[in-house]
Amino acid sequence: MRKLDSQLRKARAASRTLALLKTVEKNAALKNIAAALIKNTRQIIKANELDLKAGQRKGLGTKLDRLAFGLERIAASAQEVLKVAHLPDPVGRTLGQYTPRAKFKLERITVPLGVVGIIYESRPNVTIDATSLALKSGNAIVLRGSSDALRTNRAIVKIIRTALKSTKVPVEAVQFIDSTERKVVGQMLSARGKIDIVIPRGGRGLIDFVVANAKVPIIETGASVVHLYIDQKADLKKAIAITVNSKCRRVSICNALDTLLVHQSIAKKFIPLVTAELKKQGVKIHTTKQKFDTELLGLELNLKVVPNLTTAIRHIQEHSLGHTEAIVTEDKSTAERFLREIDAACIYHNLSTQFSDGGEYGLGAEIGISTQKTHARGPFALEALTTYKWIGRGTGQIRK
Amino acid sequence: MRKLDSQLRKARAASRTLALLKTVEKNAALKNIAAALIKNTRQIIKANELDLKAGQRKGLGTKLDRLAFGLERIAASAQEVLKVAHLPDPVGRTLGQYTPRAKFKLERITVPLGVVGIIYESRPNVTIDATSLALKSGNAIVLRGSSDALRTNRAIVKIIRTALKSTKVPVEAVQFIDSTERKVVGQMLSARGKIDIVIPRGGRGLIDFVVANAKVPIIETGASVVHLYIDQKADLKKAIAITVNSKCRRVSICNALDTLLVHQSIAKKFIPLVTAELKKQGVKIHTTKQKFDTELLGLELNLKVVPNLTTAIRHIQEHSLGHTEAIVTEDKSTAERFLREIDAACIYHNLSTQFSDGGEYGLGAEIGISTQKTHARGPFALEALTTYKWIGRGTGQIRK
Repeated sequence: MRKLDSQLRKARAASRTLALLKTVEKNAALKNIAAALIKNTRQIIKANELDLKAGQRKGLGTKLDRLAFGLERIAASAQEVLKVAHLPDPVGRTLGQYTPRAKFKLERITVPLGVVGIIYESRPNVTIDATSLALKSGNAIVLRGSSDALRTNRAIVKIIRTALKSTKVPVEAVQFIDSTERKVVGQMLSARGKIDIVIPRGGRGLIDFVVANAKVPIIETGASVVHLYIDQKADLKKAIAITVNSKCRRVSICNALDTLLVHQSIAKKFIPLVTAELKKQGVKIHTTKQKFDTELLGLELNLKVVPNLTTAIRHIQEHSLGHTEAIVTEDKSTAERFLREIDAACIYHNLSTQFSDGGEYGLGAEIGISTQKTHARGPFALEALTTYKWIGRGTGQIRK
Repeated sequence: MRKLDSQLRKARAASRTLALLKTVEKNAALKNIAAALIKNTRQIIKANELDLKAGQRKGLGTKLDRLAFGLERIAASAQEVLKVAHLPDPVGRTLGQYTPRAKFKLERITVPLGVVGIIYESRPNVTIDATSLALKSGNAIVLRGSSDALRTNRAIVKIIRTALKSTKVPVEAVQFIDSTERKVVGQMLSARGKIDIVIPRGGRGLIDFVVANAKVPIIETGASVVHLYIDQKADLKKAIAITVNSKCRRVSICNALDTLLVHQSIAKKFIPLVTAELKKQGVKIHTTKQKFDTELLGLELNLKVVPNLTTAIRHIQEHSLGHTEAIVTEDKSTAERFLREIDAACIYHNLSTQFSDGGEYGLGAEIGISTQKTHARGPFALEALTTYKWIGRGTGQIRK
């Protein structure tokens, strides 16, 4: 606790300096970080090899791929840091000017959140992505990665902090929880007033733990049950391509399709066509024993025939976690009704569900996809790492 | 639990209808409510008299005034409902249009949060204010008022629900927790997926209880330690007027002044002048045994002399709860440094701290002043009762 407290105090102090930096100063720091990651790639790979070996001994299985952080991935990550450097600065934007009753000048401008905590699972690139987004938006960051990636993350953070030494960004703006104790997660979640927001990034288990224990504001990300509805007026060629892409482009990500709903009047024609394509990709289709409330994250898919749009919408309302929902139809009014009535972060007409992504949206890198309705919804990018303050400039007005 | 669950299910269903209503339909319902409150004023007064008598027996003391809801207050509340009817509809606004990589049409539009819970203390006008703001923004509301005001609130809600019968707004959009058991508050706070946001409105004790127990997103409102810094370059006449107004206009509200910081070079001249004025208003000034971390809410004030702006800023950084902070100075660069470096919801130059209010800002009625950095900061008005969804309209694009 004392260790964490000291780190949070340093982070807070650093955040105050960071909040006042110019865009060019923050960008220079990011460019230094990118260069340092490339220059010290070997160091990261060595640490990662130790984590991978330990992971093999622990029997991590398919999780090992997420943990792997080799030459190409490090280069791609460094490239992402440079991209963040080129994004517009989200701090200091005027959100609005107002006319208060007492006629003073009132405006609302964006400022950093302050100290941002992130609790994440295996992928070491998150250490780099989250740090670069936090620094660009003027926030100090407290990183708590998975114990499986401890050595890799430790090496990355050491490189980042060293790179910051010759920049205006304080080294203490990047805090790493160098511990595998779960207790520290609880302490982070209770640090009211010391951490301004905690972002859990990982599976349902992590999210649920965070929700149950957080006393600080959190943003839930990632959990999803994604639906695609193929309407009677669908173009079947589009419908097949969108279904296969939604399910198979990548199966382990949160915007991958879980349940396919098909209008009964096209079911006989469409279902054999689409199942043939899906089977080629190794997808198992559930027509009995459906898992309508499970995020599948694998080569399986629920399939249900529905009599009409209303039933499709009701099914989605009942089972959706509010992440991504889509319809395929050539009928505009059917599409518009779907877009209007479905309540989710991302809703699509004639598009693959896998488009839910900050990069695809043109927002730059993202921290995750928020499935909550407060603060940020959908792709959680730079903008969501800021808040605002109301600034009033008067000439001595008092309130009646 | 079963009772609450059933109420929350009804609220969710109602919220779906409500979300699709036209602005005129929502406004018609609000006008009906305002008329019904006026028409049934006697009923409310009768219930309120019973609450007041019970309050006297319980020895509520000064709290009785907050509980009182007579002719004038009811009329004022009905007037507020009409004002909300005249505010612009916060739902259905386009927040932005985007250009995704895959060239489909992407926009972000505002939608209601869904089901909003509010947990509040004595004042019965909150029942009316919160309901009208929720309905205008397309949200169902779950009201949990103080047990002291149970009969008054019950009467108000009955009138509101009856008034809704002849409108397009579903009656079930307004749910009243007709129970004084604290257990229900815990259940509301755990109703993940059933309530989209809970807003506690009341003193520190309530806020702390809610923060400690919430599994649903919450917005903290109200808690504050408000500072005013009188700079060496202050116009002393303005400084006195602003100090007295900040402290005394109303002493029991969250934007009332708690700590006055005075630059040492003007202390000898300014302090006797300001204390004379404050004493006329009955304010007790603490120069020893200061309560720098307490929201005073009464006729008392901390006073501290500081050597310079930097020390003043440090004092505020250490003790502020991020609500409202102000400076009085004629020096523009000093003012700008203060406005830039202080991190709070509302920051003022040459203005009374009591301006922190949605109505004063021209935002219309407010639910409270948010002191958190996520979702909404400062006056929490209609806009903060919405979220947004991302809508993509494609022509069959799939993701690479």
